[in-house]
Amino acid sequence: MTLTTKKLKTDIEIAQESTLLPIFEIAQNIGLTEDDIELYGKYKGKISYEAIHNLNKFSDGKLILVTSINPTPAGEGKSTVTVGLGDALNQLNENAMIAMREPSLGPVMGMKGGATGGGNSQVLPMDEINLHFTGDIHSITTANNALAAIIDNHVHHGNELNIDPRRIVWKRALDMNDRALRNIVIGLGGAYQGVPREDGFDITVASEIMAILCLSNDLEDLKKRLGQIVVAYNYKKQPVTVKDLQVEGALTLLLKDALKPNLVQTIEHTPALIHGGPFANIAHGCNSIIATKTALKLADYVVTEAGFGADLGAEKFLNIKTRAAGLSPDAVVLVATIRALKMHGGLSKGNLQQENMEALKRGLDNLKKHMETLEAFNVSYVVAINRFVSDTEMEINVLNAWCEEEGVPVSLTNVWAEGGKGGLDLAQKVLKTIEENKKAFTPLYDLSDSLQLKIECIASQVYGASEVDFTVKAKKQLKEFEENGWGGLPVCMAKTQYSLSDDPGKLGRPKNFTITIRELKPKIGAGFIVAMTGEVMTMPGLPKQPAALNMDVDSSGKATGLF
Amino acid sequence: MTLTTKKLKTDIEIAQESTLLPIFEIAQNIGLTEDDIELYGKYKGKISYEAIHNLNKFSDGKLILVTSINPTPAGEGKSTVTVGLGDALNQLNENAMIAMREPSLGPVMGMKGGATGGGNSQVLPMDEINLHFTGDIHSITTANNALAAIIDNHVHHGNELNIDPRRIVWKRALDMNDRALRNIVIGLGGAYQGVPREDGFDITVASEIMAILCLSNDLEDLKKRLGQIVVAYNYKKQPVTVKDLQVEGALTLLLKDALKPNLVQTIEHTPALIHGGPFANIAHGCNSIIATKTALKLADYVVTEAGFGADLGAEKFLNIKTRAAGLSPDAVVLVATIRALKMHGGLSKGNLQQENMEALKRGLDNLKKHMETLEAFNVSYVVAINRFVSDTEMEINVLNAWCEEEGVPVSLTNVWAEGGKGGLDLAQKVLKTIEENKKAFTPLYDLSDSLQLKIECIASQVYGASEVDFTVKAKKQLKEFEENGWGGLPVCMAKTQYSLSDDPGKLGRPKNFTITIRELKPKIGAGFIVAMTGEVMTMPGLPKQPAALNMDVDSSGKATGLF
Repeated sequence: MTLTTKKLKTDIEIAQESTLLPIFEIAQNIGLTEDDIELYGKYKGKISYEAIHNLNKFSDGKLILVTSINPTPAGEGKSTVTVGLGDALNQLNENAMIAMREPSLGPVMGMKGGATGGGNSQVLPMDEINLHFTGDIHSITTANNALAAIIDNHVHHGNELNIDPRRIVWKRALDMNDRALRNIVIGLGGAYQGVPREDGFDITVASEIMAILCLSNDLEDLKKRLGQIVVAYNYKKQPVTVKDLQVEGALTLLLKDALKPNLVQTIEHTPALIHGGPFANIAHGCNSIIATKTALKLADYVVTEAGFGADLGAEKFLNIKTRAAGLSPDAVVLVATIRALKMHGGLSKGNLQQENMEALKRGLDNLKKHMETLEAFNVSYVVAINRFVSDTEMEINVLNAWCEEEGVPVSLTNVWAEGGKGGLDLAQKVLKTIEENKKAFTPLYDLSDSLQLKIECIASQVYGASEVDFTVKAKKQLKEFEENGWGGLPVCMAKTQYSLSDDPGKLGRPKNFTITIRELKPKIGAGFIVAMTGEVMTMPGLPKQPAALNMDVDSSGKATGLF
Repeated sequence: MTLTTKKLKTDIEIAQESTLLPIFEIAQNIGLTEDDIELYGKYKGKISYEAIHNLNKFSDGKLILVTSINPTPAGEGKSTVTVGLGDALNQLNENAMIAMREPSLGPVMGMKGGATGGGNSQVLPMDEINLHFTGDIHSITTANNALAAIIDNHVHHGNELNIDPRRIVWKRALDMNDRALRNIVIGLGGAYQGVPREDGFDITVASEIMAILCLSNDLEDLKKRLGQIVVAYNYKKQPVTVKDLQVEGALTLLLKDALKPNLVQTIEHTPALIHGGPFANIAHGCNSIIATKTALKLADYVVTEAGFGADLGAEKFLNIKTRAAGLSPDAVVLVATIRALKMHGGLSKGNLQQENMEALKRGLDNLKKHMETLEAFNVSYVVAINRFVSDTEMEINVLNAWCEEEGVPVSLTNVWAEGGKGGLDLAQKVLKTIEENKKAFTPLYDLSDSLQLKIECIASQVYGASEVDFTVKAKKQLKEFEENGWGGLPVCMAKTQYSLSDDPGKLGRPKNFTITIRELKPKIGAGFIVAMTGEVMTMPGLPKQPAALNMDVDSSGKATGLF
């Protein structure tokens, strides 16, 4: 007797076996004409500014935010659920679109795994989206580094603005995992080669320009925000901005196409806008406002996501993005996996495939805290269990029973394996939640609160911290920033995604802990103040065996070894 | 009485007032179907590999190379003549295409002036071509820096290949003028941040990957060449290649779309392939082989150009590109301006607008030398005078008389002001030259000659040098390179473009001079050995008032201040 094991298809195999519709057909289905779309190949298109302008006459659809509990390092499948939910809504004959972040190329070369969903819930063409896509991130890299060159050039050619080279805070950027560029010394080689100073590269998605692109409502807004970037301090310690350097026009020019949202499709031909992808720690972790707002004009339901767990992505979506965009969510989907809940309940990473009811029950504390957070924002939500093969019926029953006891709708989804079909129940529960929703969403803090108050509000109400500690440096900065007139901006917390606390080892629902604010960073162009609770890696490294070693392309241009 | 002066329109104003045809119409006119073109917006398209493959059944058109005398810093208008000649041939009802290099963004931010022709002889959309175009150069930047990250990552994670960090020769790259990145120290910050070493950034067009892309016949050839790049030496001083690092597949994948030639159009709707743009000193300065060969299949006449003067661009086109591509030119156009001839005759840069017959006559020596070079290659040519408003009738008559005496066809062109119409006479003379051409083009040296012999051949026959001096370092390298098996490669000379000698101050036709070869650089992937005759700037700087300060974009996305 021979035992045949069915080999699971990889994401790229599933993607390459899918049939794509020409993107102009997708565009036509949502009421756009051929003239509204600037094609990038047959299956990718940018929506023109004129088309976006013409959409203003339509009313907005309903906005659904997908977030999650504190994730495991592998992630909880938020993108997969986002795609699957969009597909499911369309299977129910609703008119739904998806708005997601675009992936960074750097991590693609390093670790296996893209950011375009998985299994049968993917956006396509996944290989191109994960590589250069429509060049948005390359344009941001270029704008970032043009600004860096302009700054050093200014210092080299007489330094009229009296920039202190020790206080240039604008870093260079590459869309690459390259640890050797984290800390560098530039300008070496003598008087004709610039002014020597310490510098470093961030990965492009950590650039303030990425955050700005995602928070701008149009080209004018983009230019205004770019002008407000603080790039350095002069010898009197006063901030020097892009406007002082007079290059906000040139930077906007470099980004004029990057700001247009990208239209692609899911495996099931659901239209998806994939646009912008800022970090969810030192930035706000959401796709562009312009994509979300465009989708809301084009569809009755828009499913979007925010990076990491609800303590980071959803908090920022609800406190930062909604305000910059003038939006309000109609429902939230809170994704959890049995695996992650067991991890939060104390099971070690290697044992997550084992059934363990006790760990699962203990881990529900983490889910509970995120539910409370969503309630604090006064939004309605559905819990979605993203199913894994290893989940047992007993475990699922425990979770269902707990949710019922809590009085919160829960849905078991199987979108990785089944596509939209695996999300039909979730879609129905989301529709019902929206229909019955009588809550009026409110951000957690007022912009007029002091920066310190805003930070304390997030730490206590979202993280459950008992205390917030500010270092001497942070205290000094709080004062300086208020004096600089930046006190009215929202706060963007940089914290580990693995824990509700600032210690990645504290899983579950930690209590009686202190959040330490080490340093603040002004991102005046983006329009928020970053509060750092620890070291955040803004330039990743490659592993010993990078994914790049497996990548190849055949003579016809077909990619292999990508995921 | 009011005096009205007619303000000359800028290039971008002329370009923006032009009417473009949808690029698929341009494609249809040359026999391509909609499926053959991957659109990038309405006016740019890449030709698919399948389409290129299907063209193999057609025979080649005639190939016309545009080169020039040693240029002034402002250039002699080779690109403008190339565009105007293509337009003129089509006005004569011939079936002509253009194949040109794509511009680098770095210099666009620095100095006014694009690389897409000028006046009424431009390729469009010029603003997009001069900015991100179809992303080719961004893809090359990415591949270049992915390789750099892989190298440092290899050294960081155990260094199995025993790479000597002091002998890593692969530099990082950005498409930016950024002097502060010329000489840097990377990997600082401790054991987790990589291995500290000296490094530097080149501008992307100086990357060997740019040269490789331009010399590859297809994806397989590209992958093979990428694998052969020498990135470093190990502690035994043996070369370490990309193949040793096993990332030639990943790099090819990153370049899979960049290798497809870009179809655009001139103001007069002549189809143009704009693809690849390597330096003409440390590289060979020609657009991609794949673009030239594709154009030859699609048109009866293809007008192409090579960077700088005939001593650099044409020499490399004729010794390097023709061999890698299996091509042979049917005619050469040698561009000169009255202004540059007067400069070669001793007139200072500030006085070039003044009529000066003596300087002009003396300057003809420079033209004469380049004519001799073309004769040494056994190619037929036409001299083209690219007219400037300041040229006087007397000056033009002197030049015409001289050419008549030399027995060489000469044509006064006015393509900047008149477009193709200003090049009709040149087009007719080129057609006649091709028709009457009985010469059999031959490269100047045999590949089996030693590297030293090849260098000496170019120095004496192309530059007119009386002697070649090799530094101790260069002599040692000649020996090592032959031992490494690299002796059979052609030589790529890195020399100033302003003089036939290696001293930019020696204008006209210098005699009895020595060329000094300071150093050799192996570009095994590109397939040539660079011979350095002096310092070559591979990362430009920005001027005190960069062009970026004038750039802007309005709320509809229309560029202003570009040129």
